[in-house]
Amino acid sequence: MEFTIRRALKEDMSQVLHLIKELAVFENEPEAVHITEETLINHGVGNQALFTCFVAQQEGKILGMALVYFRFSTWEGKSLHLEDLIVSQEYRGKGIGKALYNQVMQYAAQEGVSRVEWVVLDWNTNAIDFYKKSGVTFLKDWHLVQMNKKQLNLYLKTLN
Amino acid sequence: MEFTIRRALKEDMSQVLHLIKELAVFENEPEAVHITEETLINHGVGNQALFTCFVAQQEGKILGMALVYFRFSTWEGKSLHLEDLIVSQEYRGKGIGKALYNQVMQYAAQEGVSRVEWVVLDWNTNAIDFYKKSGVTFLKDWHLVQMNKKQLNLYLKTLN
Repeated sequence: MEFTIRRALKEDMSQVLHLIKELAVFENEPEAVHITEETLINHGVGNQALFTCFVAQQEGKILGMALVYFRFSTWEGKSLHLEDLIVSQEYRGKGIGKALYNQVMQYAAQEGVSRVEWVVLDWNTNAIDFYKKSGVTFLKDWHLVQMNKKQLNLYLKTLN
Repeated sequence: MEFTIRRALKEDMSQVLHLIKELAVFENEPEAVHITEETLINHGVGNQALFTCFVAQQEGKILGMALVYFRFSTWEGKSLHLEDLIVSQEYRGKGIGKALYNQVMQYAAQEGVSRVEWVVLDWNTNAIDFYKKSGVTFLKDWHLVQMNKKQLNLYLKTLN
């Protein structure tokens, strides 16, 4: 199957958003996507971009994407975070995910980061098996903590 | 106890590194800190900074620090990540950690992020209790995945 991997452009963000919504359905959270195409354009294009997005394209269609950004570890220094790697359901099993993953790892090496990191749902055994084969380390003794906007506003009120 | 919270300057990074090493000892990883004062200066000061660091200062001494940076959630948009919040052992219980935490939350509100997030070790019950009181959400069904530099180089070799 022929496809090309390249950086996402402004005009791809509509299809990238579509992939994000598809993944949210897969993760049993169909209503969870609160961003818009504009959010992706504002934060993913230009000098002030918060993230870099790679897409897999076949003719005019975006079949998959990988979204990454830099973080900073106080133990290791500059690192790369893989936020999402998505291949559209009907195009799975054709090597697109692997190609995007390899692109991310090559980008990490080019940028000289100390490590690449991401998170995976503990029931997503297909993904876990795929990552295992590439020689990663899993850390199971950490919990994620989140304070959303509503919780943040409630908390800040208690400070006054 | 009187102390001031402010942004870290270049000349604070030596003491910030000292706090990072103190936390690594607390987390049973005394040899884990591979960054230097220069790493902190290069990535924490100036227009191209990867992170923002707040410090708690009393006279010339840095008693604690909180290190944060922006991330991008494909569900929520721009978010703030709290990488480390450290108070030097002998200054704990004096409200310094709370003051740094509040500074981070106020900064998050000023920057208009959709959420603040971080990770906590599952055995660190003091920290977990502290976070709980502030109304956060804990996510326990995610594993962290890391590919370090050595693993990355090994993986990239398999692609050739």
